[in-house]
Order: sequence, then structure tokens, then C-alpha cells
Amino acid sequence: MHFKITKKDHSTYARLGILHTAHGIVHTPVFMPVATRAAIRALTIRDIEEIGFEIILSNTYHMYIRPGVELLAQAGGLHNFMNYHKPILTDSGGFQVFSLADLRKVYDEGVEFKSHIDGSKHFFSPQKVLDIQKVIGSDIMMVLDECVEYPATHHASQKAVQRTLQWAAISHDYWINNFDTDTQALFAIVQGSTYPDLRKVCVEELLHYDFSGYAIGGLSVGEPKAEYAQITALTVPLLPWDKPRYMMGVGSPLEILEAIKHGVDMFDCVMPTRIARNGTLFTSKGRINIKSGVYAQDFSPLDEECQCYVCRTFTKAYLRHIYKMNEIAALIYNTYHNLYFMKQFIQGIQKSIAEDRFLEEYKKWEEVYKTL
Amino acid sequence: MHFKITKKDHSTYARLGILHTAHGIVHTPVFMPVATRAAIRALTIRDIEEIGFEIILSNTYHMYIRPGVELLAQAGGLHNFMNYHKPILTDSGGFQVFSLADLRKVYDEGVEFKSHIDGSKHFFSPQKVLDIQKVIGSDIMMVLDECVEYPATHHASQKAVQRTLQWAAISHDYWINNFDTDTQALFAIVQGSTYPDLRKVCVEELLHYDFSGYAIGGLSVGEPKAEYAQITALTVPLLPWDKPRYMMGVGSPLEILEAIKHGVDMFDCVMPTRIARNGTLFTSKGRINIKSGVYAQDFSPLDEECQCYVCRTFTKAYLRHIYKMNEIAALIYNTYHNLYFMKQFIQGIQKSIAEDRFLEEYKKWEEVYKTL
Repeated sequence: MHFKITKKDHSTYARLGILHTAHGIVHTPVFMPVATRAAIRALTIRDIEEIGFEIILSNTYHMYIRPGVELLAQAGGLHNFMNYHKPILTDSGGFQVFSLADLRKVYDEGVEFKSHIDGSKHFFSPQKVLDIQKVIGSDIMMVLDECVEYPATHHASQKAVQRTLQWAAISHDYWINNFDTDTQALFAIVQGSTYPDLRKVCVEELLHYDFSGYAIGGLSVGEPKAEYAQITALTVPLLPWDKPRYMMGVGSPLEILEAIKHGVDMFDCVMPTRIARNGTLFTSKGRINIKSGVYAQDFSPLDEECQCYVCRTFTKAYLRHIYKMNEIAALIYNTYHNLYFMKQFIQGIQKSIAEDRFLEEYKKWEEVYKTL
Repeated sequence: MHFKITKKDHSTYARLGILHTAHGIVHTPVFMPVATRAAIRALTIRDIEEIGFEIILSNTYHMYIRPGVELLAQAGGLHNFMNYHKPILTDSGGFQVFSLADLRKVYDEGVEFKSHIDGSKHFFSPQKVLDIQKVIGSDIMMVLDECVEYPATHHASQKAVQRTLQWAAISHDYWINNFDTDTQALFAIVQGSTYPDLRKVCVEELLHYDFSGYAIGGLSVGEPKAEYAQITALTVPLLPWDKPRYMMGVGSPLEILEAIKHGVDMFDCVMPTRIARNGTLFTSKGRINIKSGVYAQDFSPLDEECQCYVCRTFTKAYLRHIYKMNEIAALIYNTYHNLYFMKQFIQGIQKSIAEDRFLEEYKKWEEVYKTL
């Protein structure tokens, strides 16, 4: 993997970059749609290609549970299994495993957990999650980390940071010695909850190792907007300028803008697809819910400014009707539109950085989405 | 509407035809996918266009209940509402209303029923269902008929035939005087359950009126295969040779073949899409269920002989995985494949008629689907 910054905005830390991976290039900033279980929820893989996404994310925990490592190995990895041949980033499974609060135990060597499907016992070590990601064939792998819930005490957060750092060291060593590091990149993860001192320590320690990129975990997990902005503002500048930065599990348009302002390059989130299935749609004028009676006789497109297949083809009245009727097509169209919106939203930001007017773009969206 | 028979098979009554409608031409025999509630279940309208369907069916009862006549009128009809500009055939609502056994009462003037959604009372007369279909803008409308369940007594079936004939006379008169009969065609419906004498009487009486085409209702509703074949064989030859014949709600590959053999031109059925959502898929070698464990490690396509997007792109192992994971994409891919199969199945039949080898095609499929 190779990362090149091609442009920096003149008044913020926002930047454009090109990420070269084994399966092609990715223009940053980038939003990655999520194929949790080897499929984007409610969308075909050709829709994803048509919208123009350059990279998707999949979840190591879910891939490990089903279809399992053996089947993925037989299939020749996830790219072949899905028949998707652009870059794939996988998380480490850490976030999912730590979300299974009652079903897991943490040890120095790793984390023991029970499958959410059949209750069977499993163990993830830093090495094991890399082995799984090797079979998946991820272009970008993530290290195993310990995630704390929000809010967490300083003590609990500090312990999690220590564990995260130990595991990062083990991961880096294991990666260097067992992987083609050019083909499968490895990103470290910064933890530390909402504590500036812990975030700082975590970054400093991680910088002893030459990871391909650096992710920020444990944000946008319920903390106030101001804390998200504060931790982002203090953490990102500590990261190496020439490496890609990835804000995990983020997020809403304004969270993404805030992070890009400080120099973050990569994002993933299930929110745009999840809210789509609930009828909530992004537009250039803010969010709308297509279920609303105000659209019953509205024969205009979802978003007059959107050029997507759905906006070019259907009216709000039609989309509302099929949503109310529980038609699966409504989930398809809503999801298509929201992901297209995210792609256009990011492209607009890229353009604004290229033209040294990122702050203008930031303010435009802040105005539109201020109440959300 | 204009119908032209272009070829007759040399050893059966199977025939090729071209149906000219206000929204374009339809090559018969034809299978019509069903957009019950203004959407094909689990598929986008561009998928339907890509597969190459020339006509779809929608349900008057469902359109009347939701979104309702007023909204359809505002939208400029169903073609505009769905943004689908090929021919649309609508049923009369009769079948749906008579399926609401506890919720309806039949009178000479029509049928009173309660909405399955909110229990509100409504009344369908022969004239009213045509008025609704006028608003829908159907290229081919159906008359209101009285459908009996299977099995039905001779007496009950006879009464239903009498009512169906009275309503057909009223419908024809109303159509002639209130419609542009070139733009909106009207088909009569033959009832009579499994009683040859009633089927015969019903056809004879209907032939007093010059309908655009003739449908056979009340078959494939649970009767034995032999009775389906017998009633089809005796009813179809009584219908005018130069008018399109439509077997309503049919059906399986073998039911369709049987009817085509006797000269039926048009079919609709939700079965291919419904079974797809249950994991059952048509192939050139018979039906398979993608849930089956035998496909867990099967990296071949669903159907080696199928050229559809799904068969060109994914393996059985992948399709099984996403189906088992309840991914909506599994419903999309399964539905796409089954409808593509139906299209190819019908095209194969068309080709066999053109080449005077329909019986060979019939026997080929009989062998493949004999146990089903």
C-alpha cells in the first residue's frame, strides 16, 4: 500500500490523497459502505459499483462466524466470494467482540467470546484476527484493540489503552514477519475514550511502529458533539501527516466534515443504509422521512439536486407509497439514494479541498444539517 | 389493441402472436411479472426492463385500497406513478375480493367488501372496477367476475357463472360507451370451476360480445393436474382463434406448457417471485433450494446454462451464505434469477413454436420438472 497526499486545503488540515492498494486506488477523503456479512444491506454489488465507491468495509467478526474461515479460504478470499474486486478494508472484530458485553472475557493474550448465533466459545488474539484477515484477503487490515463503552472511567480507559498498545506491538511484529506487507496493509487504532491524556499517550506509543495507517476508534459512540470535536482536534495532528487516517464507524455528514477539517481521510458507517431502511433520507436540504404524510401527494423527486437513479426516476409520492406498503423495492431505492448521497457529499468535499474552499463547504452543510 | 397470430406450431395449438397495445408491443406467449402494489416484490423496475419483460400485471383491488384512485389520478395513472412505460394489464379485483371470504357480500349489482387494511366498507360493481382501471390507465383491463373456491359444488359454480355473465354483459356495454376501446382493451373471463358443461356455457354466452380477449379464471386453484389439463383442453378451443387467450394466475412451468399446447397466449403468477424469497430457484435441471447444506461449498453458478446477472456473477455458496444471513440482497438475486428464468423459459418456447418443435420443448421440460 502506498499513500500520497495530493493537495492540502489552505485554511484547514483537510487534504486530498490517493491510496494505492493491491485491488486499486482510492481517492481520499473516502466513505466506505459496509458489507457486514459479505453483502451491502438491501443493495446489489453492481449498485455499489455503479454509484462509484472505490472501497468497501467488511467485518472480521461476522466473516469468522459465518461463512467462516474455512469456506472463505476455499472461495479464495472475500473478493472472490463476493465477486467484488475493488479494495476491501476489514475491521479486527474487536469492536464487535467488545459489544458482546456479557459474552466475553478479556485476557492479556486476547479475548474470549461466545458466538451471537450459537453461543459457541471462541478466542481472538492479535495474531488470530490477522490470520483471519489474511484468509479474507483484506487490502487493509486492522489490529485487535480493546474498546470501552461510553462513558468509561479514566481508569478503565487507561487499562484498555494499555491492552490496545500491547496488542498493537504484537500485531505489528506478527504482520512484519508473516505477511506481504505491501499487499495487506495494517492500520493501528488509537483508543483513549474522551480523555486527552490517554489519546496522546496512545498515539505516542503507536508511533514507535511503522503502521500503514492510523485509525481513531471509540468516537461517535454517544459522547457529546463538543467532545467528539475536541478529541478529534487533539488526536489527529499527533498522527503522521503522510499516513492515512481513518475515523472508525463515523458517521453523520457533520461528524465527517469535522474530522476532515482536522485531516482525517477515511470513514465508514452503517448509518446511511440503516436510516434508509427506516425511511430517513439525506437530501441537499437536510434529512427527510419518506413515511411522512406531507409527501403523500408530492410528485417531485426526493432531492431536486440529486442525479441518482432513484431521484431521476421516482417521485416522493411513489417512494412513500411503496415504503408504506413494505415493498422491498422501497428499501433498495432508499438505500441506493442515501449511499449515492454520501458519495456525492464526499465528492463535493474533495472538490472544495481542491479549490481551497473547504470551509465554505463545511459551513454550507453545517447550515443544512445544523439541527441534526 | 390489435392482436396478430404470426405462427402456429404444426402438431399442437401452440401459437406465436404479437399484441399491439397503447404502450407498445408484446410477443406472445408471454409471462407477466406481478407488481401487486405498484412494485415487483424485491426487484427494481429497471431490473424488470433489463430482463426484458414486455408487460407487467398490477392488481386493481390493491391499487384501489392503496394508494387509491385519487392519488393515481393525480399521478396521471399507474404508468406515470411507477415510471414504467410499457404495457400494464390489471385484473378486476374480483379474485382478491372473493378471497376475502368473511369480509364480502355478493349482490346482483356487485360485491360489498371490507378493506383488508382498515376494515372500511367498499363496493365494486362491474362499472366501478372499469372506472378504477380507467384511472390506472391499464392497457388491458379485466371484467369483474365471480370466482368460486376449489372445490365448489355444481350449483354454486353455476350461480357464479351466471353472475359472471351478467356482469360481463354490463361491462361490455359500459366499456363500449365510456372508453377509448383502442387504448384500453377489455378481456372477458371464463369461469365454471372444474365443470365442463359450465365452462362451455360460459364461453358460448361470452361470445355474444366482442371482447378484446378472453381469460380463463378459476384454474390452478388446487384442482388435480388432470382436471387442470382437461378443463384447459376443452375450454381453449371454444375461444375465438384470433383473440388473445389469458390463463389467469398460472403458473408453474408445466402448467404454462400445458396451456400453451392448447393455444393460450398469456400468463401471470406470483409464484416465481414468492418461491424465490423462500430460497427456491428454477434451473434448467429443475428446482433447487439454495438453503440446502449441499450448496455450502458449491462454487458453481446457480444454473450453468443461465446467462443472467446472478448466474454470471455469484456462486451457490455465496448465494446460500447471504440467504442464510437474511440479507435483502439474497431476495433481490433470487428474484432476479427466477424471473430471468421465466423469461428464458418462455423465449425457448417461442423459439420452439417458430421452429415447429413445440412438443419436443414440452417433453424436455416435462422430464426436468416431472416430479414437481
